[in-house]
Amino acid sequence: MKGAVIHGRGDVRVEERAAPTIVQPTDAVLRLSATCICGSDLWTYRGISPVKEPTPFGHEYCGIVEEVGRAVTSVKRGQFVIGSFFASDNTCPHCQAGYQTSCQHREPIVGAQAPLLRVPLADGTLVATADVPSDDLIPSLLALSDVMGTGWFAADAANVKPGMTVAVVGDGAVGLLGALSAKLMGAGRIIVMSRHESRQALAREFGATDIVPERGDNAVARIKDLTNGIGADAVLECVGTQESMTQAIRCTRPGGSIGYVGVPHGVQLDGQPLFFAHIRLHGGPAPVRRYLPKLIDLVLSGKINPGKVFDLTLPLEQVAEGYRAMDTRRAIKTLLRV
Amino acid sequence: MKGAVIHGRGDVRVEERAAPTIVQPTDAVLRLSATCICGSDLWTYRGISPVKEPTPFGHEYCGIVEEVGRAVTSVKRGQFVIGSFFASDNTCPHCQAGYQTSCQHREPIVGAQAPLLRVPLADGTLVATADVPSDDLIPSLLALSDVMGTGWFAADAANVKPGMTVAVVGDGAVGLLGALSAKLMGAGRIIVMSRHESRQALAREFGATDIVPERGDNAVARIKDLTNGIGADAVLECVGTQESMTQAIRCTRPGGSIGYVGVPHGVQLDGQPLFFAHIRLHGGPAPVRRYLPKLIDLVLSGKINPGKVFDLTLPLEQVAEGYRAMDTRRAIKTLLRV
Repeated sequence: MKGAVIHGRGDVRVEERAAPTIVQPTDAVLRLSATCICGSDLWTYRGISPVKEPTPFGHEYCGIVEEVGRAVTSVKRGQFVIGSFFASDNTCPHCQAGYQTSCQHREPIVGAQAPLLRVPLADGTLVATADVPSDDLIPSLLALSDVMGTGWFAADAANVKPGMTVAVVGDGAVGLLGALSAKLMGAGRIIVMSRHESRQALAREFGATDIVPERGDNAVARIKDLTNGIGADAVLECVGTQESMTQAIRCTRPGGSIGYVGVPHGVQLDGQPLFFAHIRLHGGPAPVRRYLPKLIDLVLSGKINPGKVFDLTLPLEQVAEGYRAMDTRRAIKTLLRV
Repeated sequence: MKGAVIHGRGDVRVEERAAPTIVQPTDAVLRLSATCICGSDLWTYRGISPVKEPTPFGHEYCGIVEEVGRAVTSVKRGQFVIGSFFASDNTCPHCQAGYQTSCQHREPIVGAQAPLLRVPLADGTLVATADVPSDDLIPSLLALSDVMGTGWFAADAANVKPGMTVAVVGDGAVGLLGALSAKLMGAGRIIVMSRHESRQALAREFGATDIVPERGDNAVARIKDLTNGIGADAVLECVGTQESMTQAIRCTRPGGSIGYVGVPHGVQLDGQPLFFAHIRLHGGPAPVRRYLPKLIDLVLSGKINPGKVFDLTLPLEQVAEGYRAMDTRRAIKTLLRV
């Protein structure tokens, strides 16, 4: 089969790869309905996270079960399933506590930008729908594999409650879906930091009440202005840079919470200002598996349409163009037809 | 009057100082029943926090109201009162949210190691008891001014709930009272890290079920051993060094919480390992004022005796010896008679 492989900075190619097979009895192989490109892949694409050797790329997926190992009992051939970017057994103490991305037996999903994908720990990882959904629902269901669950975790980790004032740092797919999640959790005011017109429009569609285009000190001043000098009750940090994290900390009221889901790159937190900021900090790789049943229901019932973050659709063969479009911020998120 | 003044590293003197008077109409002047020496003062005593000029020392206090400014309405001359180490108006949005140590008008208490003390924002800061308590209760009531409230905040910030496994990093007064707080909150297992026999004994008296004398990697391994490889549900970080914070992070289970109340000195948190640790982090200067009414009730009803942390009592004139004893860890905490 053909699949995407990253070779180094800015160099993603579609190459012939061996089709995946069942390796462990707990595996499943899926025929993907669609896959996509994640903002977190851009760290690698931009050379910030090094590539040691050519590596199959992509970790977001949904599709039809093609084959299962002999130990798999909860999903079967022909079912439509979604899973997270980390495979998890869903039975260990960390999974039981709802932190499946810290599963004691977790395995990263690799090579999802391809027509077929091997998913380890299929019973714990995959959630099946009752029926095979119609094609128009695929983008929104695919978004649940990472970005929607990650935005949801950001809002959950930031303790968003009804009536709260929420600020979102980052206008990528995760930030935008964080705004949508905050809206669903009843936030009274949702301030999204963005200077891109198309992203601002989608933020408003998802529930943003205010847009702050400023950055750094000026952004902090605007958030303070908008909150009578108090700061936001909850801040969603959806980038992962020193600047975005500092901004998040400075925008949060004492006793308020930051949910941070942007994988930190070069971020150092100075203990003493963090201490006196009096904030709550929680984040990490989103335990998407915890939220999948609820989020699948919300999509299937038409209550949310997170697939709107896909503003570019390309065939897998054009994956390189998909990365270029996201790297230059021409696209929010690229869906790949496989 | 005579009062303690710090001149520099290891140099605390009792000197003649002007008796405090009402400066603002919102002030009160107290005649202290007792005062004491705080572990956090040791940062200054040890020269880690610099002393620019000779400065009146001490921030823990309880006593009888001697005089109030004309705007003070909630406390009056003759009442016994306790307050926090930060004065707060208790009306601003941060106070109303329970974060009085981030009060928009907060003022640090300075010079409490003296017979008389000026307390700003008296209405917001001071909590009076119904009657003047008997002398035997003074140590426990004095402990509420900082260390008991700080230990309580550590446990509260670490989300201690009934049945949880709690680990405490630090066997100073705050760590020991953090163990007591965890016990009161229903913790099922309380692991205190300590290698000092007298502190271990007090930890057990306060509710510790396990003592871990190891440090660093070995301490983390012991905590993991004691928790079936999972880590503690809640960790109280009561020191403030890089080593103690790192230890706390590594002892916490994914999804678990750290309450950190040791003022960080030279602590840098690396974003990426923090992210993948999946922990919740909350701390800062303890909002002691929030907890005072509840903790006063617990002391007056005989349910807690936090004054047990005072294992050395000296007259104010011997304050220098009090610091030496705590600096060398001969004493857990020194009460000063004024």
